[in-house]
Amino acid sequence: MRVEVLATAGTPVLPYLEDKLVIVIDVLRATSTMVTALANGCQAIIPVLTLEEALKKRLEIPGALLGGERRAMQIEGFDMGNSPFDYAPEKVGGKRVIMTTTNGTRAIRAAAEAKAVWMACFLNLDSIVEAIYRLKQRVLLEGIVIFCAGTEDRFDLPDTLCAGMIIEELGSDLQLNDLGEAARVLYKIAKPNLMEAIEQSDHGQRLLELGFKKDVIYCATANILPIVPALVNGEVIWQIEGR
Amino acid sequence: MRVEVLATAGTPVLPYLEDKLVIVIDVLRATSTMVTALANGCQAIIPVLTLEEALKKRLEIPGALLGGERRAMQIEGFDMGNSPFDYAPEKVGGKRVIMTTTNGTRAIRAAAEAKAVWMACFLNLDSIVEAIYRLKQRVLLEGIVIFCAGTEDRFDLPDTLCAGMIIEELGSDLQLNDLGEAARVLYKIAKPNLMEAIEQSDHGQRLLELGFKKDVIYCATANILPIVPALVNGEVIWQIEGR
Repeated sequence: MRVEVLATAGTPVLPYLEDKLVIVIDVLRATSTMVTALANGCQAIIPVLTLEEALKKRLEIPGALLGGERRAMQIEGFDMGNSPFDYAPEKVGGKRVIMTTTNGTRAIRAAAEAKAVWMACFLNLDSIVEAIYRLKQRVLLEGIVIFCAGTEDRFDLPDTLCAGMIIEELGSDLQLNDLGEAARVLYKIAKPNLMEAIEQSDHGQRLLELGFKKDVIYCATANILPIVPALVNGEVIWQIEGR
Repeated sequence: MRVEVLATAGTPVLPYLEDKLVIVIDVLRATSTMVTALANGCQAIIPVLTLEEALKKRLEIPGALLGGERRAMQIEGFDMGNSPFDYAPEKVGGKRVIMTTTNGTRAIRAAAEAKAVWMACFLNLDSIVEAIYRLKQRVLLEGIVIFCAGTEDRFDLPDTLCAGMIIEELGSDLQLNDLGEAARVLYKIAKPNLMEAIEQSDHGQRLLELGFKKDVIYCATANILPIVPALVNGEVIWQIEGR
């Protein structure tokens, strides 16, 4: 199977996404936060690109909450920031959340034309890999694109390590692009000290400086939430079985 | 010293390039070809973005040659393609070459606002590292940005390995960004089989398919041309001493 890894939300993706499964990764923190929100009973996350779009969308969806960040901090007037700990069950249970982040929601929107779009992070990594195996048994999968959101159009090590872990778990019978090969090697080297590698990364360091150490440690924790979020009709929902 | 590596010509670079040394890398093949052309007596290479700009520029510079590629192939009506072997002494000696390539010349133009812009590849790697050491002794260098051209806005392994080799030769007292750290690790792993890694890369494979095996082997050869090309007033020239 062909597996391509893309480095940033700005990477051009069309037209070749058609008939492919896209897996969006934004470890720090958008996809980690989405997975957590869904685990906590959030009904759906609606990714939008701008503040204006978020506010407009809220008018259309009564009762929806607003979440997201700019420069890692909660947006003024929003209900939640981009920390997974903002999305507690008592806050998001049964609610829909309109969300805008600098990198993650951009990547999701850029991938929206693909056959299927799933959100991955360390928290749900095994469930993503299992869902890929199940999907492969049911449909002819032309290829997988692992779409790292990156950080402000830059290569992001936590996203790349997460991609590398997915690739390692998918086994050896893969055709990888350059970044896929790099991700595989980088993950293998970082594996014994994964938490440290994520903390030491540019984005990890920035979050630590801003007081989000708890977020970084949580987002670097593998396989605690058995959820495969999928983009369906513009909304990220908990999809029990990969389509 | 702070060393940042950027993955593609599309990576946003301003305003932070001011007061920094930018090293542009496009191993396959733009910077390798530029270094070769200058070694063969070419007076200057003028990087331009479009065919239109190239043709317009030629009207302004009598006797200039046109070089470059689209999809790795020579552009119709141009004097040379993007193969270093097109730039033989009898062809480019004493001439100026107007050049447009998909990735390399874009990266050079994107970096043009920096304090200094040098072109690197495996061919001139040691000379680049030595020139950095000399520059550090003369001026206070705020940081180095290693600007990998990438391949059509994608991460490119040969460029990243070349960046990793520069980083390794610069020693251990460096502050690296995520991609700098990744390049360092990837180079260390690939070092014993560098030629093979470059041949196996996406861009390497594409060039092999197109019959450019000789180019790939040549561009993967380290330290045969002691040249430090610099961008000065919009032209890439052989600068004997780093400014």
